[in-house]
Amino acid sequence: MKILECVPNISEGRDAKKIEEILAALKEYPSVKCLNVSSDKDHNRSVITLLGSAEEVPKAMLALALAAIERIDMRRHRGSHPRIGAVDVVPFVPIRDMEMDEAVRIAHDFGRELGEKAGIPIYFYEAAALREDRRNLADVRRGQYEGLAEKLTRPEGKPDAGTAGFNAKAGATIVGARPPLIAFNVNLATTDKAVADAIARAVRFKTGGYKAVKAMGVALEDKGMVQVSMNLVNFKETPIHRVVETIRFEAARYGVQIAECELIGLTPMAALEEVVRYYLQIHDFSLDQVIEAHLLS
Amino acid sequence: MKILECVPNISEGRDAKKIEEILAALKEYPSVKCLNVSSDKDHNRSVITLLGSAEEVPKAMLALALAAIERIDMRRHRGSHPRIGAVDVVPFVPIRDMEMDEAVRIAHDFGRELGEKAGIPIYFYEAAALREDRRNLADVRRGQYEGLAEKLTRPEGKPDAGTAGFNAKAGATIVGARPPLIAFNVNLATTDKAVADAIARAVRFKTGGYKAVKAMGVALEDKGMVQVSMNLVNFKETPIHRVVETIRFEAARYGVQIAECELIGLTPMAALEEVVRYYLQIHDFSLDQVIEAHLLS
Repeated sequence: MKILECVPNISEGRDAKKIEEILAALKEYPSVKCLNVSSDKDHNRSVITLLGSAEEVPKAMLALALAAIERIDMRRHRGSHPRIGAVDVVPFVPIRDMEMDEAVRIAHDFGRELGEKAGIPIYFYEAAALREDRRNLADVRRGQYEGLAEKLTRPEGKPDAGTAGFNAKAGATIVGARPPLIAFNVNLATTDKAVADAIARAVRFKTGGYKAVKAMGVALEDKGMVQVSMNLVNFKETPIHRVVETIRFEAARYGVQIAECELIGLTPMAALEEVVRYYLQIHDFSLDQVIEAHLLS
Repeated sequence: MKILECVPNISEGRDAKKIEEILAALKEYPSVKCLNVSSDKDHNRSVITLLGSAEEVPKAMLALALAAIERIDMRRHRGSHPRIGAVDVVPFVPIRDMEMDEAVRIAHDFGRELGEKAGIPIYFYEAAALREDRRNLADVRRGQYEGLAEKLTRPEGKPDAGTAGFNAKAGATIVGARPPLIAFNVNLATTDKAVADAIARAVRFKTGGYKAVKAMGVALEDKGMVQVSMNLVNFKETPIHRVVETIRFEAARYGVQIAECELIGLTPMAALEEVVRYYLQIHDFSLDQVIEAHLLS
């Protein structure tokens, strides 16, 4: 069974009743699970996690997007998080039995249909980007909702799908496909934050480390530890164990040990497949050897 | 969702058509997956692995058992594996969101119903045993089918459920509940089988090792390695990582390293939960953090 995740960010994080009404659109798609809704009043934004089959998730997401666009008016939206539209970002995430190119096709089909039905401009980002300068979400969103009308008049602001004109109520939507993101922290048995900072620099892409790692040092004062706080943005390219073992040998130079690790939120089973392969040295371990996996197909 | 496995052993391993007819009884229960059928001509026996919900698996198993009893005549059965009846052994295995006591209740209900419907004696074993001397399968099966008529005349041979009289065609059935069994091998980078033998003795219960480990040394001549071949009969009591790390430090005394490990067949996801907790030091890691687990509930 092809399993797809979708993590839409919508521009409403304060009005619980309105969020409830928007989520009600999912009732028509009972096979799609809503794993999490995280609303932030300060950001005035909600992040919703949907999970289900590759056929049903895009349909449920379309219903959700149309319900959000009906109820959110960007002309009155204020919030501390950057945003360009009522349905701000829609990333599709392949979880199981599907590759990135399938998620890209789904993102393109979804974006074209949403653009047409809602009468809004659509930009494609990350793996679904049609132009190199739209790969990075922050680049696509630059200028935000307030700069969108003007941006649409410029050639470099021309949308990838949907209407070319400005929709004042709904703004635009940025649709994409990306690998699952794993929020993973390594806590070190020291109170010296400089150690966490130095190790974060060693493992993160920006300063010479692994391609799919974002990292920073954090002091955990209650625990009397420091933390290398990370986003692993592509566990297939840079697997969890390689990051942990690199942190272990870098920490050793300061005489510091790993006290514990933290997995924040969810991980695909496939990320654990490689953990089992590495640590148990089962070179050919496959998720098909997990009994419960047979209930998913 | 409560997930239950059932691994019936039936006394037919030669007649493919008959086995097919018996398995056809499962068609009425499409939610129950038949993960594997392993027929052995020499044993004249088939081992069938069923997986599904705690409600459906016993029903499918009952249909399968009645179909087998209809088609197998023990008066003509010959095979090299010990057996006491047409449906020889029926172990129920709790896989997910259920404890052993629930599997025991299911085994008791199933055994009583099968005994009544098929008119056969039922013995309960392992966690479902009602008498200490019936805990071990080999003890219950002693005397086999050929000794059953006489055994039923003795007080210590009185069945736990079903009919007290001898059913010459079907024999008896031994019904039980047990934890999932993990077949796990550790291959050592040496050709010295004495090393594997010594380590097998160190980790197995019988010779002073871990309670839930059965082990023996094996020479792998093609690979130029030796193997500690194991059955881990209760991964909650004796987890995989503890056995692997014990083998690692015992092998080190001979200057020998672990070359690789092998997982034969299937494992419950829960066994991997503890692998992740130990090796990644995520002390509170839970299977609820695996995205796909949310599609099982």
